[in-house]
Amino acid sequence: MREVAVIGCGMTKFGELWKKSLRDIFVEAALKAIDDAGVDRISSMYVGSMTPGLFVGQEHVGALMADYLGTPQIPAVRVESACCSGGMAFRLGLFEVASGHSDVVLVGGVEKMTDGADVTYALATAADQEYEVYHGVTFPGLYAMIARAHMHKYGTTRQQLAMVSVKNHHNGALNPNAQFRGEVTVDQVIKATMVADPLTVLDSSPVSDGAACVLLASMDIAKKVNKPAVKVIGTGAATDTLALHAREDITTLGSVKQSAEAAYKMAGLKPSDIDLAEVHDCFSIAEICIIEELGFVDKGKGGLFTEQGHTSLTGKIPVNPSGGLKSKGHPVGATGVAQVVEVVEQLRGEAEKRQVKNAKIGLTQNMGGSGASSVVHIFTNA
Amino acid sequence: MREVAVIGCGMTKFGELWKKSLRDIFVEAALKAIDDAGVDRISSMYVGSMTPGLFVGQEHVGALMADYLGTPQIPAVRVESACCSGGMAFRLGLFEVASGHSDVVLVGGVEKMTDGADVTYALATAADQEYEVYHGVTFPGLYAMIARAHMHKYGTTRQQLAMVSVKNHHNGALNPNAQFRGEVTVDQVIKATMVADPLTVLDSSPVSDGAACVLLASMDIAKKVNKPAVKVIGTGAATDTLALHAREDITTLGSVKQSAEAAYKMAGLKPSDIDLAEVHDCFSIAEICIIEELGFVDKGKGGLFTEQGHTSLTGKIPVNPSGGLKSKGHPVGATGVAQVVEVVEQLRGEAEKRQVKNAKIGLTQNMGGSGASSVVHIFTNA
Repeated sequence: MREVAVIGCGMTKFGELWKKSLRDIFVEAALKAIDDAGVDRISSMYVGSMTPGLFVGQEHVGALMADYLGTPQIPAVRVESACCSGGMAFRLGLFEVASGHSDVVLVGGVEKMTDGADVTYALATAADQEYEVYHGVTFPGLYAMIARAHMHKYGTTRQQLAMVSVKNHHNGALNPNAQFRGEVTVDQVIKATMVADPLTVLDSSPVSDGAACVLLASMDIAKKVNKPAVKVIGTGAATDTLALHAREDITTLGSVKQSAEAAYKMAGLKPSDIDLAEVHDCFSIAEICIIEELGFVDKGKGGLFTEQGHTSLTGKIPVNPSGGLKSKGHPVGATGVAQVVEVVEQLRGEAEKRQVKNAKIGLTQNMGGSGASSVVHIFTNA
Repeated sequence: MREVAVIGCGMTKFGELWKKSLRDIFVEAALKAIDDAGVDRISSMYVGSMTPGLFVGQEHVGALMADYLGTPQIPAVRVESACCSGGMAFRLGLFEVASGHSDVVLVGGVEKMTDGADVTYALATAADQEYEVYHGVTFPGLYAMIARAHMHKYGTTRQQLAMVSVKNHHNGALNPNAQFRGEVTVDQVIKATMVADPLTVLDSSPVSDGAACVLLASMDIAKKVNKPAVKVIGTGAATDTLALHAREDITTLGSVKQSAEAAYKMAGLKPSDIDLAEVHDCFSIAEICIIEELGFVDKGKGGLFTEQGHTSLTGKIPVNPSGGLKSKGHPVGATGVAQVVEVVEQLRGEAEKRQVKNAKIGLTQNMGGSGASSVVHIFTNA
């Protein structure tokens, strides 16, 4: 594979964007990324989107976005892997540039979730319809089972779960693109409206609209653009059983571990080499499991690690400096690309009040379903 | 890009497969492809599917199919470009092998359309919801407008349109996997139930269930497997405006022309070098426009070319020897991969009663919407 770099990035504010349609928010993010890089042409386009068919009655969003971006001739395709649609779109765009077929590829993610669709039904299509959803389970329910099992097996406390949300809201308050910019306390998280015991609404990522885009290019192009290039040095993806009941241990996210191992191996790095990570905190328990699977801390110690402050902006390994899905928002198809935007801004030193000091190597981890898909990327300054 | 070959292929019978679910039909086709090649492992998987969320309430079908195929660790992703989801999945799988990241990649396409969903609504999500569908247009309506314009501008006759269906039903009658294996006459096509004037139900591809899979591999692996390898020597993809009204001339399918030009250029070939083609005859008029855009005949002469028999099994350039979408069936996400299965079988000399003589170079053309996406591949014996 030839080397590939991110040469530009852009995103919309995440939130309830009622005055803008799906195509408007994508184009806004794409134009920002193109301006950021300062390129005048793109070879092709990948759009990560989970279920625009169910959310707004529109499939075929690859061609739609090429059309509305004013480039209605270039190849354009949509990529879907539930909530890691954006991260997988990034991986496939990377392969196109790495293969030598194209030199500049736009990868975006977009979702419009607040236009009146049945969001719980639409999101549940990421779980196993025949064995899980028909029996009434929802995503908060699946993650609540993981949380209860983790508490039982490893002694993770209710307070530790809440501390993930407290940290991520603190970071999100510093992010102008975040949906929720207010801080919360452990007590507020625990006493918030119950969704699926033990998870309250403040353990859960919100329903959001938003888009994020990046431009990938070969290194010779990357040297000629506006901003310093950020190299992609590792990619890893993996899957697991779609249904939670089919796994040996529901506190283990095998796809996260395997996708991380593949990315570390390709980059020639180990977990302790990572300076910051954006991870898929769709629920508070998810971040705890993920930092364990990524190797930042031993299995079962993620709650304690969070409580000790090691994942805060000034900790050993800052996790979700952007505010994460919890505070920044979670327009599902956009999330994986927005994680890349954050890591690029951090590595360029452009993250302002949430800047991680001496950030040289960043990691993104994006997940689909209850861990049935995971994709990890590792980045460094060129 | 390094060279890539198709080393195995398989498909289900297309039709109303009421006793099998989405996952069953995909796994059936995947196991056939794996058996055909005789490999014992695959590195990753691409699943083309247009809208399983709307058809059967299931997204995240990449991970689902890896799970049910018994490979629940490998990277797996879904690719969507409306009715060319399968063809685009093939292109992205090709890039992954071409990049050197993976050596054996499974590419499949699947759709389950007969499980009770509102098929007209689901398919209409491939058109522009905000400017076309909200105003009541359907896909037969869009293609009927193209047909009327083609008849007006070029003198294409109602009989010539019908001859596309007559030819494709003749070929499909020879294909054991085809949904409809009965021959039809010009008179029967014209007098069939009207769908959108001038197109009758016998000008239209059916609603189908089905899956098709192929295995892509690097050339060193391709030399070691059961069957003779078929090399992929050209790939091209392009888009056009999503809405028909935004085009300068609705009888021109710009995306088809551009995707073909890119594929011919990569292969170093011209239209007259092609020995057979599988093209996207979702409606009879589509095949006429497509053979013009592919350069098999001058613009406007596609109807006459068909009438003269040049696209028949024994003609100058046999088109849709499989029976095409019209007779073989059109499970939308599966179609693009099924086209590759047919070309591979033809180039291997395994197409039995529908075998094209001296077939050395084959082409597939798969389309989304009313031509907003098109993808072309060119193949030859290794």
